[in-house]
Amino acid sequence: MSPKITTELLKQLRQVMKSPKYVQEPVQAYIVPSGDAHQSEYIAPCDCRRAFISGFDGSAGTAIVTEQHAAMWTDGRYFLQAAHQMDNNWTLMKMGLKDTPTQEDWLVSVLPEGSKVGVDPFIIPADQWKRMSKALRSAGHDLVPVKENLIDTIWTDCPQRPCKPLITLDPSYTGVSWRDKIVALRSKMAERKVLWFVVTALDEVAWLFNLRGSDVEYNPVFFAYAVIGMNTIRLFIDGDRMMDPAVREHLQLDSTLEPEFKIQVMPYGSILSELQAVGAGLSPKEKVWLSDKASYALTEAIPKAYRYLTPYTPICIAKAVKNASETEGMRRAHIKDAVALCELFNWLEKEVPKGTVTEIIAADKAEEFRSQQKDFVELSFATISSTGPNGAIIHYKPVPETNRTLSVNEIYLLDSGAQYKDGTTDVTRTMHFGIPSAYEKECFTYVLKGHIAVSAAIFPNGTKGHLLDSFARSALWDCGLDYLHGTGHGVGSFLNVHEGPCGISYKTFADEPLEAGMIVSDEPGYYEDGSFGVRIENVVLVIPAETKYNFKNRGSLTFEPLTLVPIQTKMIDVNLLTQKECNWVNDYHQKCREVIGAELERQGRHEALRWLIQETEPLVRVQ
Amino acid sequence: MSPKITTELLKQLRQVMKSPKYVQEPVQAYIVPSGDAHQSEYIAPCDCRRAFISGFDGSAGTAIVTEQHAAMWTDGRYFLQAAHQMDNNWTLMKMGLKDTPTQEDWLVSVLPEGSKVGVDPFIIPADQWKRMSKALRSAGHDLVPVKENLIDTIWTDCPQRPCKPLITLDPSYTGVSWRDKIVALRSKMAERKVLWFVVTALDEVAWLFNLRGSDVEYNPVFFAYAVIGMNTIRLFIDGDRMMDPAVREHLQLDSTLEPEFKIQVMPYGSILSELQAVGAGLSPKEKVWLSDKASYALTEAIPKAYRYLTPYTPICIAKAVKNASETEGMRRAHIKDAVALCELFNWLEKEVPKGTVTEIIAADKAEEFRSQQKDFVELSFATISSTGPNGAIIHYKPVPETNRTLSVNEIYLLDSGAQYKDGTTDVTRTMHFGIPSAYEKECFTYVLKGHIAVSAAIFPNGTKGHLLDSFARSALWDCGLDYLHGTGHGVGSFLNVHEGPCGISYKTFADEPLEAGMIVSDEPGYYEDGSFGVRIENVVLVIPAETKYNFKNRGSLTFEPLTLVPIQTKMIDVNLLTQKECNWVNDYHQKCREVIGAELERQGRHEALRWLIQETEPLVRVQ
Repeated sequence: MSPKITTELLKQLRQVMKSPKYVQEPVQAYIVPSGDAHQSEYIAPCDCRRAFISGFDGSAGTAIVTEQHAAMWTDGRYFLQAAHQMDNNWTLMKMGLKDTPTQEDWLVSVLPEGSKVGVDPFIIPADQWKRMSKALRSAGHDLVPVKENLIDTIWTDCPQRPCKPLITLDPSYTGVSWRDKIVALRSKMAERKVLWFVVTALDEVAWLFNLRGSDVEYNPVFFAYAVIGMNTIRLFIDGDRMMDPAVREHLQLDSTLEPEFKIQVMPYGSILSELQAVGAGLSPKEKVWLSDKASYALTEAIPKAYRYLTPYTPICIAKAVKNASETEGMRRAHIKDAVALCELFNWLEKEVPKGTVTEIIAADKAEEFRSQQKDFVELSFATISSTGPNGAIIHYKPVPETNRTLSVNEIYLLDSGAQYKDGTTDVTRTMHFGIPSAYEKECFTYVLKGHIAVSAAIFPNGTKGHLLDSFARSALWDCGLDYLHGTGHGVGSFLNVHEGPCGISYKTFADEPLEAGMIVSDEPGYYEDGSFGVRIENVVLVIPAETKYNFKNRGSLTFEPLTLVPIQTKMIDVNLLTQKECNWVNDYHQKCREVIGAELERQGRHEALRWLIQETEPLVRVQ
Repeated sequence: MSPKITTELLKQLRQVMKSPKYVQEPVQAYIVPSGDAHQSEYIAPCDCRRAFISGFDGSAGTAIVTEQHAAMWTDGRYFLQAAHQMDNNWTLMKMGLKDTPTQEDWLVSVLPEGSKVGVDPFIIPADQWKRMSKALRSAGHDLVPVKENLIDTIWTDCPQRPCKPLITLDPSYTGVSWRDKIVALRSKMAERKVLWFVVTALDEVAWLFNLRGSDVEYNPVFFAYAVIGMNTIRLFIDGDRMMDPAVREHLQLDSTLEPEFKIQVMPYGSILSELQAVGAGLSPKEKVWLSDKASYALTEAIPKAYRYLTPYTPICIAKAVKNASETEGMRRAHIKDAVALCELFNWLEKEVPKGTVTEIIAADKAEEFRSQQKDFVELSFATISSTGPNGAIIHYKPVPETNRTLSVNEIYLLDSGAQYKDGTTDVTRTMHFGIPSAYEKECFTYVLKGHIAVSAAIFPNGTKGHLLDSFARSALWDCGLDYLHGTGHGVGSFLNVHEGPCGISYKTFADEPLEAGMIVSDEPGYYEDGSFGVRIENVVLVIPAETKYNFKNRGSLTFEPLTLVPIQTKMIDVNLLTQKECNWVNDYHQKCREVIGAELERQGRHEALRWLIQETEPLVRVQ
């Protein structure tokens, strides 16, 4: 992978930063966040402005360009990737390390007195604007909104914003109709005494209307906003997709409906002016509810006195707790996904020794097996198919320049998942197709111990996920090892593979308490730079636990793995496991054998079934 | 314990809340925080305004009185105590429980439109003012400073502010002279480009000048402020204590000194006007550093543009990392403290069966044995001497009305500590003088497992203490048990027994990373309301750990117990321990035997030595 040469682009950007055509006054710094106008993590090609200007295309990162400097902030998952993809014009700011300055501190240290720092007000979330604006102001600088996106002005071949057809989901998938979701939302609005709710996150629009799209790769969402009043529903969406009879029927656009369920369809681009009109028409005490992560532009459309901002919206919280239909769908999706992976790993065991399987071929084969499963839609993220040193690049994606051939001498790490119409999957397995070294097995076993410690954890109702993060690290810490990423994220139901408001991370302090029905990943890892990576990831469902004393009726929770794919026993140093951990592995493999075995049998996949049975032989602990 | 009758007092308070003599406009609510003007946790009798108005005298709590209501917010340590001490005029707000409203939300729910909420600006920290003021304003109310403290106006027999003699500490205790501490502070000020630093916390003043006092019971501090400039030192302190020749010599008040080390002594009450003068004389870019927990009154003395506020001051952070002299002093103090407790427990074993030892007698006996030790100054907090159901009142203090007799049928919990001139101690042991039940042993053993999990934890440099909190709970959680308090707090060196900026708690998200030299407590517990309490507490020192792989040279930390008092093996269900935990207990007891045994021998305390040897017999785990 050679870095993108950005000298000319940066020169052009620095020119427009001073050009009266685009800025009222010259800006001495310009911030390029990684999100789109909906603060999405995964974005459409037309929104990949940070990747365009820097070359670094990981999912998280913020670029700041000044007259003299260009700097990129990203987290531990992407240190290696960013260093590879960026040229010498760029300084990498490693977030999470002690000596790394914040963006604000760095700006203050490099800017001349009284500088203007520009940013696209549609791209920066209101809470970030507030924090950064305050820090800059206290140092004598100004954060200013630049209406025209300056990257777009120099991006001559910028792709068009996608506008693909929609999928409608009936209540057998969603459990609840969109009308009932609107009713529940309005009741939350009434509780908080707000008159309007603005839906800005793409997955929240999709969830609310039981619609899915494909405007953004891997995320079944579509570009839209919604504004919900107590008696009105406005959906801001472009294109002819509202002409689709199935969509019209689903949204009852042509039916005679009670007025409060009548959906007004408006152009996507009219959200700002419509919201400004709402803002202008408010009487005292009338409030508008927005996420504090909504864009600065939309937030400013509502006068400050009328805003009701919360870190998590009622939709975000409702969406996280899966109902029975969604949970059953997620179970079905994970069974199908496991069938595909049993096929893949059986195939790899045979093919890898021949020396013909590259990371890209393996990833393609995984997609091929998944696509054979019912209701498959697309992958849920770019497959991380990595062998040897590539495994240490936490969010690696194989490209021809880096594509290694799988061998019997290197660890192979596959982190992959899919969107099925009934659910979203995300699973990581780390395999060796030859004989792993003692050190590789040792590291793998510590990661497994961490994985089990979280998966088997029992904790009282009301516990936040971040309190469980250290359980995943304890075995690694004991030997002086660690990993620089969180342990788990929320997973959507045929929606985004990463979703809030819950998670398991040392970084997430604003997470909501875990509740039965929430679904998160459990994915500790260990990465030896230049050598190998280990990660073991299951998607797990939060379920009530039975305990001896039950927290004086406060109740307790634990996790049930939805992912049912064998964990390679060859990689386990059994003597490092406790008997309890050993039993966990054996019980898990027994369940894989029963549930996935039955499905492999049903689908007539006898060779993969034989592989499954061989891989789920019980561990025996000799002491 | 019968509750304080507050009907008449509340009537009087509600009158002055409307009296033009004290308030410019009537206030519809008045907030009575628990701190003093220095935001101290432990306060002098003249500052116990919240206890005076409500009867509840626990260390944490905020009272709010409106025209109709009186409500008290406190945390899980004090639910039972507050319920016992307050009459029916008061509503208890149990912080940490899901349905308990915040003070702001509650005020908004009960106040009539456009209310004024009053508070003493010297008592409320600036950060709390800001948060509360914002929340009230957004609901149409106003937080207003009431200069005269309204409780003081109705508190006819309010005691005088204490003004006791000072103790000087030479560098053999402190390791660093006050001059060198000033030099280090000024270098931190220069780093942050601030010209002035305002010392508002009493323990920070005491630490900076290597002085101790006894104005506040248990905390060796004295009422004072300091304002440090780049070339000036101002100490605001009352009374004739500056006439003491030892103090004059220590502070070099009569020596010919470089001007930047010359201390100007000023009256305590002149801090506000002096600070206002400093504020008025500032030029642009000249900043004044204050804790964001300094009082609203002092913070407002500095115009907003000139303030530099941080959650932890450089003194707080420097004070937390003990130097070699302080660490050695803490070790000595803990050895002496263990000698006193071995004497006490040996005495209790003999006396309890006679039925003549009450909680108060036991507490007094503990103090008597401690006071026999060299450099003993006073207790470091009110001894929690509690038997049976009283043990479940987390911060219980025996009083004649509640005083139970220790017996061979109940668990006894003793949480106590002392101030020695060389260090501060804080230790909890839970004992049974007869035959504990299987359930009592089970609970004790889970708490012990939690204690060991923290004490033996290994974690990378830079880890914050709150990430370790769940380790202490895991064994309890597995059986559906928990405790409603944090796991540990920072401990001062012959200073406050609770100090920041580090700790081990699910609640503390703003804690600073643990560093070698920091000292914290490790004190998980379990409380069965109406029945018994269990807590096992050691004071532990953060030390470098040796690990197999050493976090790629990032380095790692663990804890070394400074407390060396046997943990009652009779209470342990050995079969619930792992071999590793069993070894930890045996190694710990071996160290107690060696270190404390030698000191008991030296002091000729042979009976206590025999008790120690018997109590430190190794556990044997049968499987």
